[in-house]
Amino acid sequence: MTMNIEQYINILNKTDFKNLYDNDFFLTWEKTDDELKAIFTMADALRHLRENNISTRAFDSGLGISIFRDNSTRTRFSFASACNLLGLEVQDFDEGKSQVAHGETFRETANMISFMADVIGIRDDKYIGKGNKYMHDFADFVRQGHDDGVLEQRPTLVNLQCDIDHPTQCMADMLHIIHEFGGVENLKGKKLAMSWAYSPSYGKPLSVPQGVIGLMTRFGMDVVLAHPEGYEVMSDVEEVAKKNAAASGGTFTKTNNMAEAFKDADIVYPKSWAPFAAMETRTEMYGRGDMAGIDKLEKELLEHNKENINWQCTEELMKTTKNGKALYLHCLPADITGVSCETGEVDASVFDRYRDPLYKEASFKPYIIASMILMSKIKNPQEFLQNCVKRDLKRWMK
Amino acid sequence: MTMNIEQYINILNKTDFKNLYDNDFFLTWEKTDDELKAIFTMADALRHLRENNISTRAFDSGLGISIFRDNSTRTRFSFASACNLLGLEVQDFDEGKSQVAHGETFRETANMISFMADVIGIRDDKYIGKGNKYMHDFADFVRQGHDDGVLEQRPTLVNLQCDIDHPTQCMADMLHIIHEFGGVENLKGKKLAMSWAYSPSYGKPLSVPQGVIGLMTRFGMDVVLAHPEGYEVMSDVEEVAKKNAAASGGTFTKTNNMAEAFKDADIVYPKSWAPFAAMETRTEMYGRGDMAGIDKLEKELLEHNKENINWQCTEELMKTTKNGKALYLHCLPADITGVSCETGEVDASVFDRYRDPLYKEASFKPYIIASMILMSKIKNPQEFLQNCVKRDLKRWMK
Amino acid sequence: MTMNIEQYINILNKTDFKNLYDNDFFLTWEKTDDELKAIFTMADALRHLRENNISTRAFDSGLGISIFRDNSTRTRFSFASACNLLGLEVQDFDEGKSQVAHGETFRETANMISFMADVIGIRDDKYIGKGNKYMHDFADFVRQGHDDGVLEQRPTLVNLQCDIDHPTQCMADMLHIIHEFGGVENLKGKKLAMSWAYSPSYGKPLSVPQGVIGLMTRFGMDVVLAHPEGYEVMSDVEEVAKKNAAASGGTFTKTNNMAEAFKDADIVYPKSWAPFAAMETRTEMYGRGDMAGIDKLEKELLEHNKENINWQCTEELMKTTKNGKALYLHCLPADITGVSCETGEVDASVFDRYRDPLYKEASFKPYIIASMILMSKIKNPQEFLQNCVKRDLKRWMK
Repeated sequence: MTMNIEQYINILNKTDFKNLYDNDFFLTWEKTDDELKAIFTMADALRHLRENNISTRAFDSGLGISIFRDNSTRTRFSFASACNLLGLEVQDFDEGKSQVAHGETFRETANMISFMADVIGIRDDKYIGKGNKYMHDFADFVRQGHDDGVLEQRPTLVNLQCDIDHPTQCMADMLHIIHEFGGVENLKGKKLAMSWAYSPSYGKPLSVPQGVIGLMTRFGMDVVLAHPEGYEVMSDVEEVAKKNAAASGGTFTKTNNMAEAFKDADIVYPKSWAPFAAMETRTEMYGRGDMAGIDKLEKELLEHNKENINWQCTEELMKTTKNGKALYLHCLPADITGVSCETGEVDASVFDRYRDPLYKEASFKPYIIASMILMSKIKNPQEFLQNCVKRDLKRWMK
Repeated sequence: MTMNIEQYINILNKTDFKNLYDNDFFLTWEKTDDELKAIFTMADALRHLRENNISTRAFDSGLGISIFRDNSTRTRFSFASACNLLGLEVQDFDEGKSQVAHGETFRETANMISFMADVIGIRDDKYIGKGNKYMHDFADFVRQGHDDGVLEQRPTLVNLQCDIDHPTQCMADMLHIIHEFGGVENLKGKKLAMSWAYSPSYGKPLSVPQGVIGLMTRFGMDVVLAHPEGYEVMSDVEEVAKKNAAASGGTFTKTNNMAEAFKDADIVYPKSWAPFAAMETRTEMYGRGDMAGIDKLEKELLEHNKENINWQCTEELMKTTKNGKALYLHCLPADITGVSCETGEVDASVFDRYRDPLYKEASFKPYIIASMILMSKIKNPQEFLQNCVKRDLKRWMK
Repeated sequence: MTMNIEQYINILNKTDFKNLYDNDFFLTWEKTDDELKAIFTMADALRHLRENNISTRAFDSGLGISIFRDNSTRTRFSFASACNLLGLEVQDFDEGKSQVAHGETFRETANMISFMADVIGIRDDKYIGKGNKYMHDFADFVRQGHDDGVLEQRPTLVNLQCDIDHPTQCMADMLHIIHEFGGVENLKGKKLAMSWAYSPSYGKPLSVPQGVIGLMTRFGMDVVLAHPEGYEVMSDVEEVAKKNAAASGGTFTKTNNMAEAFKDADIVYPKSWAPFAAMETRTEMYGRGDMAGIDKLEKELLEHNKENINWQCTEELMKTTKNGKALYLHCLPADITGVSCETGEVDASVFDRYRDPLYKEASFKPYIIASMILMSKIKNPQEFLQNCVKRDLKRWMK
């Protein structure tokens, strides 16, 4: 599906993405279809250029600031790779907890680290109602700083996972689907099952299932969300999914039956997450410093999970999918039965068979992030692509 | 006050800064007026070029090594930004305490991390009589290494705060003043109050007040140092301030009365610091590992601070300054009453009103550091500026 | 001994190094004489270019990933310097212990951090039978990832010290010897003593003595390995040394007498290490989590070391070397009697006299690493060198 650079430019020429420029990326459903298409197109174009050893440097100097308020390996390296690909140097901000305890200091810190920052990437996914808000505050503070003449440039923000959405992950997942099915036009009527799956490790954020139903309902697919009772996701996001499905000519349905979701599915995404209500309780407990309460809650939830131990992506279940060959997705790392845990989300043989596609799925993330950065920083990306080819700067003198 | 690049070059042409080349920056009063003027001019020129999207890359490869022996956010990011602006990659040296316990190993370490280092930035501000010495030792070791043919280039040193001076902070503060007052020529006879202020958090270094009186007495201003009894700064630095004032046609006076210092002041810099004598005791205690003694001392000093709780930069006090509108300075973060602490250095409403200028004050630091680096590494900075314009390399393909 | 760039190119033209391309560097004895010669030559050429302020940038973007499973200062900075010299940005992977506990996750992690990685540098030297294997697994996983189309480029691996060899150290040591003796051709018949020496700090890896006898027996020298009984190194490596010596026209002998080894030696390398058998026991204990056993073992070994406290590189011993002026080598840091410990590997006066050459010895490491990277990434290094000169890109606008 690789095209020459003119073809990417032609797609961009027919796409309205002007509002991406000088803007932040919080949630996929805040962006138009055209804007998402532009980001996918630029991600493919950047990969195409890199594969052809053509430098995509857009910055001669400048910083990409990363703030990880939760552990991360692959997103950290994806953000670092994306920045490096464009010529930005990553500087990690390891905030002391006390330093941002007060609103005043947070506004100050946001500006103090941004004097030469072109982009800020933030992961803050652990507490309901907090992460997305933190990102908005940060973006507001630095926009203000720029408006007031404090910052010479406005650093734009990329959401590297919040409590609501995980846009860089889900956009990478989606670009993988598009490539696997040979184009968006082939997705109409395809069935995608976003299903809860058993895990012995509690507390996984809801941002992936929410991000998946909030994004993948926009391409005319039949998206099914499956989970045991009690494992609901945010109702606001379900509303988004319903509207998306209606607008795209697809469907969005829910079930408490994993087998029903997998039946004849073209794509399956079995993955554990914590119940929304528990996440809310946890956030309140955290707010009042009730760590003993959190410990107790986590134990209860592990017990709760166990009641649904049969929610596993087994070989048997995979056989019930379309031709027994649904595309298996996961954001990684997965809880693999007999490998990373005794009993987990997926059978080892299923995971093994899909290892290559899973790794490829992950490989889109650096390009999605780079594309998000570029589309927010460069007014005329078509001209940029043209220049990359014209200036003949090799990525690597091999 | 922005000029075109020729005007910056013209100023440099009339300024004698040849001793900055291949040299370290420890204390502002070790530099001539012309040398400081050259650093201010280059800082402005670098900012001008960056604002006009012109790359100021001076290095195609090379490392900037940072050693922070005390916590830091804004100086860390300022140093990283400055290095990045010039094309150097920052590599942080996180020294194990034991590794530099012996002089032998310290000399070795200094050389071992410097094989490809062009500049070293060090913060070491906690112990009287130690920080500046540590920097000199480091600089001596690597100069020796270069002379002996071990290091192909001599890494020059930038003092990112020692026990005596905080030159990158005070130079940034000063450049802010120069811009706010429309030029150095407008500073003659202006009154600047460097005043102690109450803080509930003990132990702040003396390097800022010392750096301020050591630098700001050089521009013909009337500099007043105000503090409660017992909060003296190093007498050597007071001597420097006196000589500077005499030479520049200004004055340097002291008072134990905050109101007197603020009366009709054009510029105020209210900030907490620890008493010099206590800092010395603390250093001795640290030297003999008397951590219990240090704890006890810190508690006593907090009590001592409380006796001077009325030393606050209030709205009332601000009204007594020149037209009630003195320029309020702070190195940040400030202890803001009712915001970051119950009672602190400054009223929230005063701080709020000056937030923009305060952030701008801080924004000069990366450029001051970049200028210090550049003037020590480039023999003909005028030619460098000319080349930056001529080569037409954009900072960013926006 | 500096040559012009054509002379380096001429040497490369006559050398067969095609198997270095797209290949990993694990052990020196897995490489041919020509391949080592090519790496030495490129290291010298890179240094020559840098000394002449000519940029050796080979990458416009790309990451160098470092994984340090043991503490490091000089190797860490050498790797960072080497990457920076070639245009790669270093990204350190600080693995959580649990994340690579399972083979599955290790394969995954290797690929997840390598999407834009051109080179991986790993130090893993603490456990016999583990470090080299870990590196091979990593290299296999990413080669597989590249073959499967997951990774667009194959990151090649540089062994920054394993349980068997320390090739970047020993190659730097060797290049230092070559320079000190004015060329490889002058080494025939020279005597090199690799000797155990007393240290009060236990547990030093065997990779340096093994690396030294495995490499330095290839140049026609008379290499003597001296150690007290019980301090044997891996017998496999001794076999390598014997074969090397036979092939190069030199000798490889062993002795339990330090004085015998030093007698008339042209080069001495006195350094502490742990007995192989103890290292093996330690690895087994570690494998079954027997930390108390390890503690006990370490204490026994310190006692064992003490029985050989007379194995010191003293002034008296140095006098017995060739003209009393053998070249003293050490990988640093050394345990210096009266400086970094009460009684250690070497007299302070001996160490002092050789400080300059020791620092120079260390200064070759960044160039050796850069050369290893370059020879594995660039098919036609002669053309690369030619281009570096032709394109006239300065390392630094001084």
